[in-house]
Amino acid sequence: MKTNISYEESVEILRELKLEPLGIEKVFFAQSLNRVLAEDIVAQEDMPTHLTSAMDGYALKFEYLEILKHQGLVVGGICKAGESAYISCKQGECIKTFTGAKMPQGTDTLVLVEDVREEGGKIFHSMPQAIHKGQWVRQVGENYRQGEVLLKKGTKITPFEIGLLAELNRVFVCVYIAPKIAILSGGDEVIEVGEAKRENTIYSVNHHLLKAIAQNWGAEVFLFPLLQDDKNHNLESVRQALKQCDILVTTGGASKGDFDITQDVIRQECDMVFKGVRMKPGKPVGFGIKNQQCVFLLPGFPNSCAMTFMLFVRIAFAKLTGNVTGLPMPLKARLQGGIVRKDTRKEFRVCNYEIVDGEYRVGFWDKKVLQSSVVNNFCNQSGLLVLPEGGGDVPDAQMVDFYPLQSLLNL
Amino acid sequence: MKTNISYEESVEILRELKLEPLGIEKVFFAQSLNRVLAEDIVAQEDMPTHLTSAMDGYALKFEYLEILKHQGLVVGGICKAGESAYISCKQGECIKTFTGAKMPQGTDTLVLVEDVREEGGKIFHSMPQAIHKGQWVRQVGENYRQGEVLLKKGTKITPFEIGLLAELNRVFVCVYIAPKIAILSGGDEVIEVGEAKRENTIYSVNHHLLKAIAQNWGAEVFLFPLLQDDKNHNLESVRQALKQCDILVTTGGASKGDFDITQDVIRQECDMVFKGVRMKPGKPVGFGIKNQQCVFLLPGFPNSCAMTFMLFVRIAFAKLTGNVTGLPMPLKARLQGGIVRKDTRKEFRVCNYEIVDGEYRVGFWDKKVLQSSVVNNFCNQSGLLVLPEGGGDVPDAQMVDFYPLQSLLNL
Repeated sequence: MKTNISYEESVEILRELKLEPLGIEKVFFAQSLNRVLAEDIVAQEDMPTHLTSAMDGYALKFEYLEILKHQGLVVGGICKAGESAYISCKQGECIKTFTGAKMPQGTDTLVLVEDVREEGGKIFHSMPQAIHKGQWVRQVGENYRQGEVLLKKGTKITPFEIGLLAELNRVFVCVYIAPKIAILSGGDEVIEVGEAKRENTIYSVNHHLLKAIAQNWGAEVFLFPLLQDDKNHNLESVRQALKQCDILVTTGGASKGDFDITQDVIRQECDMVFKGVRMKPGKPVGFGIKNQQCVFLLPGFPNSCAMTFMLFVRIAFAKLTGNVTGLPMPLKARLQGGIVRKDTRKEFRVCNYEIVDGEYRVGFWDKKVLQSSVVNNFCNQSGLLVLPEGGGDVPDAQMVDFYPLQSLLNL
Repeated sequence: MKTNISYEESVEILRELKLEPLGIEKVFFAQSLNRVLAEDIVAQEDMPTHLTSAMDGYALKFEYLEILKHQGLVVGGICKAGESAYISCKQGECIKTFTGAKMPQGTDTLVLVEDVREEGGKIFHSMPQAIHKGQWVRQVGENYRQGEVLLKKGTKITPFEIGLLAELNRVFVCVYIAPKIAILSGGDEVIEVGEAKRENTIYSVNHHLLKAIAQNWGAEVFLFPLLQDDKNHNLESVRQALKQCDILVTTGGASKGDFDITQDVIRQECDMVFKGVRMKPGKPVGFGIKNQQCVFLLPGFPNSCAMTFMLFVRIAFAKLTGNVTGLPMPLKARLQGGIVRKDTRKEFRVCNYEIVDGEYRVGFWDKKVLQSSVVNNFCNQSGLLVLPEGGGDVPDAQMVDFYPLQSLLNL
């Protein structure tokens, strides 16, 4: 087991884990939002399949331009979108043709309805010298060709992928099975939401906070009864959770206190990979493996546990869903007001951000003291300002790295 | 009715609409994700309610520092988190105290367990001169004070708000009722996903694409049967939709073709506010009001309709949910490769983007010709590059405005 490693090393360990997606299921395409594709999506035919009118107008053969210029073209028929009758255009004629219609046989060019005057069954164009061959006609395969891979395995499905799947008539689509996350949290001072308040107790935050984050990722989440500060209760809970989850997350009991028994139980039940990361908050974070299951030992303060959940658990979760995008890249922002640092650990500070003239600005104008327990600091539009290991104050107006929290909530 | 207005004017009209949220319902806090608060959330008590240990260590009175330095302090007891017995600290003693515990009566300062040596029932500190009064103690009301407004009416609920609601023991919370959106789309060339393909037909994209976007916003969506190019069918569909929705969206039938009958029906049934916006794509877009309902006439090509849906319908939808955030601010990005413009309309071009050294880069490296029908252009990580009205080419490496599509999918 590695101890007291750098944040970068801990991320690298998680990235390099040999974790395969859990399996594949097929789902109705319109219910596949935010799932991850488990197959390449390949075009079965060219799109468009035929020359198609891109606008409302008159279809003609470019060769007839001179006739159009001098005598006008006879309107030989009408071609509506969706009509399956195959309309053909005779020599010296044009066909009134609507957006989305198959171009009539023998035509290659479209003139727009608004550029044309129709008179005595003929059309005359206002600027025939500006017409070029093939204008306003969608060519066969212009969107994509038969056999083209349009979406790769590992792509997360957004509304646009759903639109494309509809166009391709893919009623069912294969996606990776959503990982199951079990969350164990508690301590004798923690009571459940809705319980009568007793002196010296606080309501359970971590369970509900982590569950909401994980649901945003698309996880199936199990909340276990609150952990008691009792070794047997911890052991039973951990064993039960390992029976039914792919990722086990514990919060609290990860430090050096006499009642930090969760970590003893986890160490006993799993192969620990690392324990202790030189970061703030999150120093006591641990990671272990039990068979193919990932086990994360997170700190107990709400902010510390939410941050480490988003930074660490996210990587393992993404791997298990077959998602190839991984951790987002941090953005650059201009710091408002300087930062004094007392610590050399890598730091993630909850900050405010706004966009001014298209540039991100970060600061702490709405934040309480930077304590790990202030869950209200995360609310409203917040981000994580990233400060490198090694310490050093940061002057006002310097460019710094940051993540909008939203970017860590979407997988 | 205004016609051929600027994009800015059309947005201003929508922003200024007098639309009230639809109503209020109470929901279980853990199921309130992505809803919008219909009440201010106010702290009912100070947090913490009492002096609280922020770490595992020994609680003492700062006055005893000299005794600690010279003789060591007797450990007079143990104070666990969650214990309701009130422990007090006698003169010249300290109490072993754990993270989250109420500080024993008579103590004001905590020394960390790792800085202390315990010997013969007494503790000795490794660096007593570094101890300052109140260290590692969370002060009463440090997170927030009783009566403080922690979340304002109109706030969208993210996982962090759920964490805070848990801490506040708010089992139920008042949110605005989700607006209902009806989507009418079709045309004789459009067939439903799953139907056998006929010549010259395409599968319905708009219905499924817009529904997925609206669901991401939190809407309840009704898809109507595909519209036929028939006035009576259009009229019946529009009237039925207006009976059951807050926002009606039609796609297609908005231009000048002989079969663009949807707009005739909408004009007949609603008070049109504007029709025609100097933007590309989206020129034929229209907006009307029927009683308190919003009616949007969107173009039929998938890209044009998705873009205008995200840019226009979003504003009305946000108002109806009581969401105060509105349209996101565009970001700045560096353009890769120049842009030649043939049009003076305001333009929204689907682009690729990536983050390089914390800076957004946009370009068209993965995009097919910029046509309104290429729904695959939206897939993978894409954005909308915004070009101002008036035209003018844009040189390589210039900073331009853009929206990551993701920012338009989240409300």
